[in-house]
Amino acid sequence: MDDTEPMIEHSPACMRVSRVLSRIGDKWTVLVIMLLRERSRRFSELKRGIDGISQRMLSLTLRNLERDGLVTRTVTPSIPPRVDYQLTELGHSLAGPIQALGAWAFEHMAQIDAAQTSYDEKEKAV
Amino acid sequence: MDDTEPMIEHSPACMRVSRVLSRIGDKWTVLVIMLLRERSRRFSELKRGIDGISQRMLSLTLRNLERDGLVTRTVTPSIPPRVDYQLTELGHSLAGPIQALGAWAFEHMAQIDAAQTSYDEKEKAV
Repeated sequence: MDDTEPMIEHSPACMRVSRVLSRIGDKWTVLVIMLLRERSRRFSELKRGIDGISQRMLSLTLRNLERDGLVTRTVTPSIPPRVDYQLTELGHSLAGPIQALGAWAFEHMAQIDAAQTSYDEKEKAV
Repeated sequence: MDDTEPMIEHSPACMRVSRVLSRIGDKWTVLVIMLLRERSRRFSELKRGIDGISQRMLSLTLRNLERDGLVTRTVTPSIPPRVDYQLTELGHSLAGPIQALGAWAFEHMAQIDAAQTSYDEKEKAV
């Protein structure tokens, strides 16, 4: 045992932050927030805009976002009923940091791919 | 069907970005990056610094970070061998955006908790 300082003294808060982060970091959540950043969207629009998301997964993602207070859901009682989703003020305040992380990921994707390839080749060589 | 524009034309890239994001957004990954941001750390230090992480999960998280080119691993052949982890330049470039998102999560945690409580109460009332 070495005598380093206690490292995350604010650990319970830190764990709560990381719980928030792991939900926010979910890939579907990020894509939904990116699409809603521009304007409100209907369920069907979001579904079409996000490649590979199932109806069930989109519903779940939107429900979690609504529960977190990041998205509001408006039902217009037409036939068929129309459902619109939009970011709340809290949701908009998150869109900035999310976009920054997204930009980082986009910018460094090739570097990460190259690192993975080189790592996997070294592993194979062992 | 309404006639909205195709929404994410750069969809394959977008999905790759979101894959990167979902790994980065993982709560253990975030905590490891936060700790390594200050200085290099030994495995045992990281283990003690992150409440609730198992040996296996920490190994896996570090291995993924190494594979992504975000962390390097240095083995000093002492008895017992000493293993240090540090962020690469790429890893340091990610620490900024991660910290920004972490700061957002920390700042708005109470608001999110309140939204969840109110959502759950409404659900119960239905």
